Amino acid sequence: MPLLVMKFGGTSVADIARIRNAAAKVKREVEAGYDVIVIVSAMAGRTNELVAWVNETSPLYDAREYDAVVSSGENVTAGLMALTLQEMDVPARSWQGWQVPLVTTAAHGAARIERIERAAIDAKFAEGMRVAVVAGFQGISPEGRITTLGRGGSDTTAVAFAAAFEAERCDIYTDVDGVYTTDPRLCDRARKLSRIGFEEMLELASLGAKVLQTRSVELAMRYNVRLQVRSSFSDEPGTLVCGEEEVMESRVVSGVAYSRDEAEVTLTSVADRPGIAAAIFGPLAEAGVNVDMIVQNISDAGHTDMTFSCPVDQVKRAEAAMLAARERGEVGFEALVADTNVAKISVVGIGMRSHAGVAARMFRALSGEGINIKVITTSEIKISVLIDRKYMELAVQALHDAFGLENAA
Amino acid sequence: MPLLVMKFGGTSVADIARIRNAAAKVKREVEAGYDVIVIVSAMAGRTNELVAWVNETSPLYDAREYDAVVSSGENVTAGLMALTLQEMDVPARSWQGWQVPLVTTAAHGAARIERIERAAIDAKFAEGMRVAVVAGFQGISPEGRITTLGRGGSDTTAVAFAAAFEAERCDIYTDVDGVYTTDPRLCDRARKLSRIGFEEMLELASLGAKVLQTRSVELAMRYNVRLQVRSSFSDEPGTLVCGEEEVMESRVVSGVAYSRDEAEVTLTSVADRPGIAAAIFGPLAEAGVNVDMIVQNISDAGHTDMTFSCPVDQVKRAEAAMLAARERGEVGFEALVADTNVAKISVVGIGMRSHAGVAARMFRALSGEGINIKVITTSEIKISVLIDRKYMELAVQALHDAFGLENAA
Repeated sequence: MPLLVMKFGGTSVADIARIRNAAAKVKREVEAGYDVIVIVSAMAGRTNELVAWVNETSPLYDAREYDAVVSSGENVTAGLMALTLQEMDVPARSWQGWQVPLVTTAAHGAARIERIERAAIDAKFAEGMRVAVVAGFQGISPEGRITTLGRGGSDTTAVAFAAAFEAERCDIYTDVDGVYTTDPRLCDRARKLSRIGFEEMLELASLGAKVLQTRSVELAMRYNVRLQVRSSFSDEPGTLVCGEEEVMESRVVSGVAYSRDEAEVTLTSVADRPGIAAAIFGPLAEAGVNVDMIVQNISDAGHTDMTFSCPVDQVKRAEAAMLAARERGEVGFEALVADTNVAKISVVGIGMRSHAGVAARMFRALSGEGINIKVITTSEIKISVLIDRKYMELAVQALHDAFGLENAA
Repeated sequence: MPLLVMKFGGTSVADIARIRNAAAKVKREVEAGYDVIVIVSAMAGRTNELVAWVNETSPLYDAREYDAVVSSGENVTAGLMALTLQEMDVPARSWQGWQVPLVTTAAHGAARIERIERAAIDAKFAEGMRVAVVAGFQGISPEGRITTLGRGGSDTTAVAFAAAFEAERCDIYTDVDGVYTTDPRLCDRARKLSRIGFEEMLELASLGAKVLQTRSVELAMRYNVRLQVRSSFSDEPGTLVCGEEEVMESRVVSGVAYSRDEAEVTLTSVADRPGIAAAIFGPLAEAGVNVDMIVQNISDAGHTDMTFSCPVDQVKRAEAAMLAARERGEVGFEALVADTNVAKISVVGIGMRSHAGVAARMFRALSGEGINIKVITTSEIKISVLIDRKYMELAVQALHDAFGLENAA
């Protein structure tokens, strides 16, 4: 029988009425002839409550116990979903991560999936069970202890099951109805995309379009799992995230993303020598600073300016790391200048690979609005710029118009 | 190292502050040189919330899924208790039922413990762990699914661990500070007992003194586990439930118990023939009626009256079962008469075995207060009577005085 994976997030299973609504969607797929693996999150708010309790016990908690506590939320939803499906005459049962088993590394709190053993679930499908409900976000370590995959790990669980069971599709039901050309709150001309490529989705996800966890998209791309983002609260089709070859239209640009809370940090008069970049960015990485864009000016008389961007709330940490590195004599610079009022705007599209002139069009659109570009970086399918935060909304709208995204589909 | 089992009920772990209070008691025993196995219930109110959700999904739910959902409450407490102990520098870790494993029958919702495998916990004690925190009330079936032992099953879990690990004692921490000669709310002369025998405790428990689950006392008696009931909210010693030989004082009577909501049901003019008792009590048992006392009058011209007691809220069910049995011709009787305004009073004491005259003293005390006795039953260590409910409180006080229990200890 063909098989589907359906994943429901916390707001989609927040109470019994919503679990029933989700179960009705599952039943429809069963009636259409699919065996279904349902992955569930904890009921909305539950995980936060459990995490708060753990934090109350100890500021430096044992991650193994954290996992044992926090994973319980998904177990509750899995049982309730199985019961609800049974009540609708759909043969179903629940599985906890250790029962499958879904084996992970022992990196508690942020474990990686090693393998999913199919035998137990396959046997039940063979006996006539139509739906396996699996608690998301959790697994079992080689030592037999419960692990969790990190926040948002249920998306990753869903994709991993879709890969292991060769599912026809992996539907991620959530509280938005798909992936948009940009944030509809910032631009009322934003349009829902019917399809988007994995790489585009990855760029959008990492740029703050928080529809899917980045890890789950990476996994889907690696195993070529067709992923659909759709709403739990409507019957409209959502957005299919899939291989490039399935994205019919040759759109040049698929979306405009933004990231609000960026900071631009410049080290002035850095003594330019081989290995200087490592000397700067090594200590920053060790200090947990997520450096994003990096620009190095042309050297002038053996000195250069080095500029990078990072989240606003990491500037202090970056500064401390740099001052300490200078103290140790590992790096020489004159001053550290931080501008915490910048935002990042990106245009993303696989069509850029074959279309020249995207950057020029982007820069023209921004200059047409009088917006100054502070930093630029590019990848094969993305161009990002750092601008003053006050122009962020204007820039998103101008770029959305410049690339004709109001006509996207 | 000597080993203790300590069990904390729902009110004793209702929030993080109370979990800390309980953990401090555990730490004290560790510092006194004990290895400790802690059994925890779900935080107060949690299990009821989970049960309510299950009931909301389906009136006729799958008990296997019920168990998967409801067991999650204890898992949360186990992890939080382990974290709290670690924060107090006590080496601890949590175990869920399946991790131990504690293997049960597959009777979901009311499973019986088959065995506890010591190896994993013993190995950790050998490595220096001082406290194993185990989620109460749950186990794993031979099929690998989560089971629960029925409400109150955490007491039973505690006793089973004390037996398996040959614990020096099993301390049950609860919201009362011990076993009393009678209910202090009914008689201000009630005294806390320092020791009580297993069989007395069993009779008291089954008579409504709800300090310990009956099953846990039975198990303790079978494996001779010394059981102490004590308060989570004080440091006073509680009541030790132990073998008869350890109860020093040769008390004749240890306590006066009562059961408020009893009903007396009489079938009049029953055709007296061999097998008639089975013909009556078989259908009652099938209908789920908990028949307690039974009295059969002397036969008169081939007919007799049959009287039994049962909880008030089961009278309707008893009546339906009896009328249906008469309909099917299995039993003949003239009328079913129910008195729903009766209560049961019992005196319990292992000293009765060797002391005659307890019954006479009891009946004299009751008649001295003008209380009429409707039904009498006796066992080796207990005499119970059914009386009008309005005399219940008076009867408890009169009997408490008659047996000098204000001087018990």
